Amino acid sequence: MNPKMGNLIYAGKAKTVYETDDPDQVIVKFRDDITAGDGVKTESLVRKGYYNSVISAKFFEVLEDAGIKTQYIKLIKPGYMLCKKLDMIPLEVITRNIAAGSLLKKFPFTEKQELEPPIIQMDYKNDEYHDPMLNDSITIALELATKEELDTIRSITLEINSVLKEFLLSKAILFPDFKIEYGFDSEENIVLGDEISPDTCRLWDAQTSEVLDKDLFRKGEDGVMDAYMKVASLLLDETDIAKWNVEF
Amino acid sequence: MNPKMGNLIYAGKAKTVYETDDPDQVIVKFRDDITAGDGVKTESLVRKGYYNSVISAKFFEVLEDAGIKTQYIKLIKPGYMLCKKLDMIPLEVITRNIAAGSLLKKFPFTEKQELEPPIIQMDYKNDEYHDPMLNDSITIALELATKEELDTIRSITLEINSVLKEFLLSKAILFPDFKIEYGFDSEENIVLGDEISPDTCRLWDAQTSEVLDKDLFRKGEDGVMDAYMKVASLLLDETDIAKWNVEF
Ligand SMILES: Nc1ncnc2c1ncn2[C@@H]1O[C@H](COP(=O)(O)OP(=O)(O)O)[C@@H](O)[C@H]1O
Ligand SMILES: Nc1ncnc2c1ncn2[C@@H]1O[C@H](COP(=O)(O)OP(=O)(O)O)[C@@H](O)[C@H]1O
Ligand SMILES: [Mg+2]
Ligand SMILES: [Mg+2]
Repeated sequence: MNPKMGNLIYAGKAKTVYETDDPDQVIVKFRDDITAGDGVKTESLVRKGYYNSVISAKFFEVLEDAGIKTQYIKLIKPGYMLCKKLDMIPLEVITRNIAAGSLLKKFPFTEKQELEPPIIQMDYKNDEYHDPMLNDSITIALELATKEELDTIRSITLEINSVLKEFLLSKAILFPDFKIEYGFDSEENIVLGDEISPDTCRLWDAQTSEVLDKDLFRKGEDGVMDAYMKVASLLLDETDIAKWNVEF
Repeated sequence: MNPKMGNLIYAGKAKTVYETDDPDQVIVKFRDDITAGDGVKTESLVRKGYYNSVISAKFFEVLEDAGIKTQYIKLIKPGYMLCKKLDMIPLEVITRNIAAGSLLKKFPFTEKQELEPPIIQMDYKNDEYHDPMLNDSITIALELATKEELDTIRSITLEINSVLKEFLLSKAILFPDFKIEYGFDSEENIVLGDEISPDTCRLWDAQTSEVLDKDLFRKGEDGVMDAYMKVASLLLDETDIAKWNVEF
């Protein structure tokens, strides 16, 4: 019995959120739209939403199995995820295991420098202000979160990082960095929401260092969808493929 | 017996640091140079160094009287301060009591919004990288300070803020924000260094809201030195003026 897809609640840059007949549940539709450079570069990549949704579902299942609370209820079918409705916290929580990207532009780290313990960075999810980096003091003054909530978010994030880093390494993929978002469920728990996909992670082939994520799109390179498909095929086992009817 | 001024150790944008015959002491010369906009705007303001040095000396004496460790030994004469030599920590520690300046450009605060508790922001003192804002995690990864050192810096900074805010209010001056720097003395204590002056603070007349700090220079307005002199004349009592032979 799949829940009925109701009214559109929010259409973002890559996903659309719909009501269901259960007020505590939403359907997240993963779209093919892809943007970069603060929304300047926009395109549509055929079946990106399809693969991102199964990759995300796999990550959420791995996390749930490790005892971490997520929004994930189930993948209705590729592209459509049934989730707990969350009251989102407007923070982009970024974890960095290897120095790459904007970190290198802003600070004197060495390219591919290992970061142990990982860096946790929180940006304010605010298009008008271009997602500025926060510190705890500013986050609290803006009333985006309390000190206790920030500490909870950091501790869950480090757990998520450990679980996913290990899972990915078992699939021969490195995990330089990723961005996640949290929200409050109906019981006021802080719960992992949004997505975890090649759109929101850096993922590198552990053997060849081949880039398997949105950086390909940012740099205008070919083979973006091939890379996303490769990630899906590396992460999903036969049971997942059968359960979700994933086609490659 | 004043110590002998030795070799130049470091010439910065507004001050020059000289050796003395005591290896643990330096003479800080406050120069008339003033810069703004990441060093783009540069000028010389006659007697700025003179007034900044007496204002800074007064602030350091007020802080020492309140039991806070500073570099300050004595003002040799206006313009020349004898200080403990510190091994500087490359952080610009900014405290904000009222929202103003770059904070308003970067984040959705309201102009003149009261910030209670104050915001503490740390920027990496690094001209090549344009003094980027840090968070604890990045500061630690860059090995600029440990978590314990950051907590110590925050706690001393809040004390300094309380003491100076009250002192300034008793002189009818508001204290929207200020930037300080710390270093390690020869016994590895974290000690307040550098300067506290209209170059490094926002200072507003409590009655008229008149700006009495470097913002006048940043905005290209007249009367910069008049404002700095006014701050000196408001802060110094007759004893200070006599002791340091300050001329207005
Ligand atoms: N479980 C959830 N419940 C409600 N909203 C969510 C949930 N998960 C994610 N969201 C929000 O839905 C939107 C997802 O769409 P997306 O295209 O990523 O938007 P955006 O462009 O704002 O990042 C985001 O704003 C995200 O915060
Ligand atoms: N007590 C001290 N001992 C040694 N160095 C100091 C001390 N106080 C400040 N400094 C350093 O001396 C320099 C002061 O000169 P300034 O013109 O402000 O330089 P900058 O342009 O680097 O800010 C700064 O680099 C500051 O960190
Ligand atoms: Mg998004
Ligand atoms: Mg300076």
